[in-house]
Amino acid sequence: MAEYVLHCMAQSGHSYKVALMLELCGADWKPKWVDFFNGETRSDAFRTDLNEMGEVPVLVHGDTIMTQSAVIMDVLSESFGKFGWDSDAERREILRWTIFDNQKVSGMIGPLRFMRTLMKTGETDVVKWLDGRCKAALAIVDKHFADHEFAIGGKPTSADFSLCSYLFYEGELGIDLDAYPNLTGWLARVKSLPGWKHPYDLMPGHPLSDKD
Amino acid sequence: MAEYVLHCMAQSGHSYKVALMLELCGADWKPKWVDFFNGETRSDAFRTDLNEMGEVPVLVHGDTIMTQSAVIMDVLSESFGKFGWDSDAERREILRWTIFDNQKVSGMIGPLRFMRTLMKTGETDVVKWLDGRCKAALAIVDKHFADHEFAIGGKPTSADFSLCSYLFYEGELGIDLDAYPNLTGWLARVKSLPGWKHPYDLMPGHPLSDKD
Repeated sequence: MAEYVLHCMAQSGHSYKVALMLELCGADWKPKWVDFFNGETRSDAFRTDLNEMGEVPVLVHGDTIMTQSAVIMDVLSESFGKFGWDSDAERREILRWTIFDNQKVSGMIGPLRFMRTLMKTGETDVVKWLDGRCKAALAIVDKHFADHEFAIGGKPTSADFSLCSYLFYEGELGIDLDAYPNLTGWLARVKSLPGWKHPYDLMPGHPLSDKD
Repeated sequence: MAEYVLHCMAQSGHSYKVALMLELCGADWKPKWVDFFNGETRSDAFRTDLNEMGEVPVLVHGDTIMTQSAVIMDVLSESFGKFGWDSDAERREILRWTIFDNQKVSGMIGPLRFMRTLMKTGETDVVKWLDGRCKAALAIVDKHFADHEFAIGGKPTSADFSLCSYLFYEGELGIDLDAYPNLTGWLARVKSLPGWKHPYDLMPGHPLSDKD
């Protein structure tokens, strides 16, 4: 029995944030596949037992059930003493970029990729609107990385794992990331962290992998 | 010169979160109108001097410039010793609901109201999609308040100010909040906090008010 069990699925960028952090912290963890595409997160059992918000990831550690990737990563930063802050100012800078990510980067790229690539809805008005929102947010992130090595400065933190999450699903976004050279430079720095893995190598549920 | 200056505008629910908290904390503060509708938040000057993310609210306190309502409220909770946490667990519960709000409640109701009511786009596919997302999130919040007095339990915190923000723009959302009776019960409790004010009574820029 692993110390940490992450309820997740390969296609969830929000889950990947936590999976990547657990892996890079060297945690004793294992993923547990959630059948999102058949409605498991919308079921009464999931909402009662795991997360009233009906979302993955959910991290179980002993008797503690944690939800919302930002909160889970905040806890893991303290538990492992890694990828966190050295001052209150740094903690708030991590939170500032993590919130921006949840609302405007992951929060928009998630639905965009879901419709465009997984559901194959075609270029509907909703897809076009999300595409525009995503590109506006990515331009802000790109500009930030013109003079920042990582999200809050010279060291990687959980804010990087939040921001990068959906961006590693290359080829599934329908957005050419090469248009954002500072952003791709930063993604390469995240990718070169010792132990980095692609979402499909960390979590089960990809169509081409076993599920459990 | 007020101790705190909040760069904001009356129509911004995200700004209202901070304005309401400053008011309820009894802070010495004043609002400074941002001309969002003529592109001020997209200007180089705003992004260089105030917020690279191109968003309101921005709170200026002495030499400190703070952005992202969740971060600002976290700071104010500590500065004033009000509407914050008594334990790490409470702090994380505040963060959990604040993140959910930023991504799925305010983060979706903001654009919905902007299109439907301010821009009068009509019931486009994008408006219909946002409407569905908002209603799904409101159902989760409504269920939560079936057995919670406030967001994290028995006392009001900044998580309540985050969640309630756009919901006080009654009649501008195109969503009948009476369909969510637990939610409206909680909104009434927030409204009854001593010193509560409507967004249009706290911030300048409403078409019917003076701007500055």
